[in-house]
Amino acid sequence: MREAAYEHGGGLDAAMARFGGRRADWLDLSTGINPSPVALPPLDHEIWARLPDQGLQERAIEAARGAYDAPQSAGIVAAPGSQALISLLPFVLPPDLKGCDVAILEPTYGEHRAAFEKAGHRVSALSSPQDVAAGARIVVVVNPNNPDGRRLARDELFALHGRMRERGGYLVVDEAFADAVPGLSVADIAGVEGLLIHRSFGKFYGLAGLRLGFALTTPALAETLRSRLGPWAVSGPALAIGASVLTDHVARASVAAMLQAQAALRDRALSAAGLGLVGATPLFATVETPDARGLFEALCRRKILTRPFAYRPDWLRFGNPRNAAEAARLGDALGAARADLERGVKP
Amino acid sequence: MREAAYEHGGGLDAAMARFGGRRADWLDLSTGINPSPVALPPLDHEIWARLPDQGLQERAIEAARGAYDAPQSAGIVAAPGSQALISLLPFVLPPDLKGCDVAILEPTYGEHRAAFEKAGHRVSALSSPQDVAAGARIVVVVNPNNPDGRRLARDELFALHGRMRERGGYLVVDEAFADAVPGLSVADIAGVEGLLIHRSFGKFYGLAGLRLGFALTTPALAETLRSRLGPWAVSGPALAIGASVLTDHVARASVAAMLQAQAALRDRALSAAGLGLVGATPLFATVETPDARGLFEALCRRKILTRPFAYRPDWLRFGNPRNAAEAARLGDALGAARADLERGVKP
Repeated sequence: MREAAYEHGGGLDAAMARFGGRRADWLDLSTGINPSPVALPPLDHEIWARLPDQGLQERAIEAARGAYDAPQSAGIVAAPGSQALISLLPFVLPPDLKGCDVAILEPTYGEHRAAFEKAGHRVSALSSPQDVAAGARIVVVVNPNNPDGRRLARDELFALHGRMRERGGYLVVDEAFADAVPGLSVADIAGVEGLLIHRSFGKFYGLAGLRLGFALTTPALAETLRSRLGPWAVSGPALAIGASVLTDHVARASVAAMLQAQAALRDRALSAAGLGLVGATPLFATVETPDARGLFEALCRRKILTRPFAYRPDWLRFGNPRNAAEAARLGDALGAARADLERGVKP
Repeated sequence: MREAAYEHGGGLDAAMARFGGRRADWLDLSTGINPSPVALPPLDHEIWARLPDQGLQERAIEAARGAYDAPQSAGIVAAPGSQALISLLPFVLPPDLKGCDVAILEPTYGEHRAAFEKAGHRVSALSSPQDVAAGARIVVVVNPNNPDGRRLARDELFALHGRMRERGGYLVVDEAFADAVPGLSVADIAGVEGLLIHRSFGKFYGLAGLRLGFALTTPALAETLRSRLGPWAVSGPALAIGASVLTDHVARASVAAMLQAQAALRDRALSAAGLGLVGATPLFATVETPDARGLFEALCRRKILTRPFAYRPDWLRFGNPRNAAEAARLGDALGAARADLERGVKP
């Protein structure tokens, strides 16, 4: 089994190649993306045809400022997905932070480490926010964390930020999964020195194909990021949809409620199958079970794709079922899969 | 007059702010983008929702390979607009080319110089491909050139590439406007050492808002670019539309014929107004006239936006009118604008 193929989003092709079935046959729970996208606003044909103009870019930025409750003093840059900003950040740091030691609260989303290592930084794993090594100038925290759901409270982040700022360094908070968790985001202090916040549009709204993400930070660092992305980095449709959806407070509340409902169905199915949670957010739950790899394969044989982790062969992550019918399918499959495992069925 | 606002694409907002009118009142000839977009293929809802998977990315790449007639040996990377690759290229060069001298055949699209200077290269203007300074390791040519329409023949490019390759350097050919000019592209030799070709999807097909472009080069440099862009750099809709449109040979031929027809209408209107061409391509024409700035403003008063150049106050560039009616509107406005200028009317 080529594990790598399932380790990152978009592994359905690999799963179909090995386990068969057409796309429509599969229940894809391998991502932390809302499976019930918001309705697309009508798109003027010009949005596809013209270069996205300054006014449209500013509307999307201001919509993000409002939705994330960031102050006017924050610099905000839009990118084709928050991944683009994660990949770029290590390459645009101020000269005195080039190649500095970086600490990342791990295990977490692997692209932060990959990007800093690519830029020549020495990266160490941090197991607790209290343990930041004296030499580290940049700390990265995903909050809530993926895949274990760990939350750092705002006070912990404020303290961590204060410490990094004293060193002339940065706290990077990836809030990709924060939209659905009230009271967790620190976007309301964005703009202060030494803090950068990543936000993802697609995960919460279920529009990951659109590619839209934001960094909230000082105006100077935002401008540096924008300049390195170059003009027109984000598509017209992404900007127009972002500007519309992010200002729609009813849609925002409705998505949050829908995710809570899906998460409850998901966690009940997991619990009914006797699986213990490592942690969860409204967008995914991770369970710990000795033969997680066997469970992954047994679910694949039933055309349900989940997310294994090479570094934790006893963990398996589940995205949200859309509704009660999909949750029931998951519950039935989990029951049958566990029976397979007890009988020693192999693929 | 803030010239900078009109110097780059997307200046219609600035023009409306100064000269009034709503968007629909304006005839925007300020870009070199096909004003008659191809029909959008139907888009599956999943394209917006899911992360673009590997299979979709590969279909778009292979569609580009076919449309641009690039060999199997070429490495091709997709990006959210060719601008993203222009901005990134100077930052991913092999170590021995970091900070090397760069020569650019100018005047041309300004973002090549801006990107290399941002990465710390010394950039010099080249007035002829024969004059490459002994120290230059990278040469950039836009072919056909924007805004003067100058073409370098394939033989000239092959010779230039040979010279740069001997130096262990690179020839960069920006073929953003090459789709509509048969026999000009060197994409059929993409993949050889020392050559990188930029291609733009949006200009020829009239879908610039989509953000899709490609670099064709060695597999190694393509992989480096892809790695630095990070995963999922291009939106699902852009990849799906690119994969569909780039394999549609009828659409490709029909767009080329339409652009020829529009260019003929455009050049007749310019010529009837007594304006001499600096040069032209099927997507734009540039004229030389002593008071090009005055002509620009006189046309703005008639809600026609064109493209002035700070470095050549005697040049003005015209994109294509969609059809005979728009060409007639342009012709009438040119006649009236010239009468204004003779009478000394000021805005």
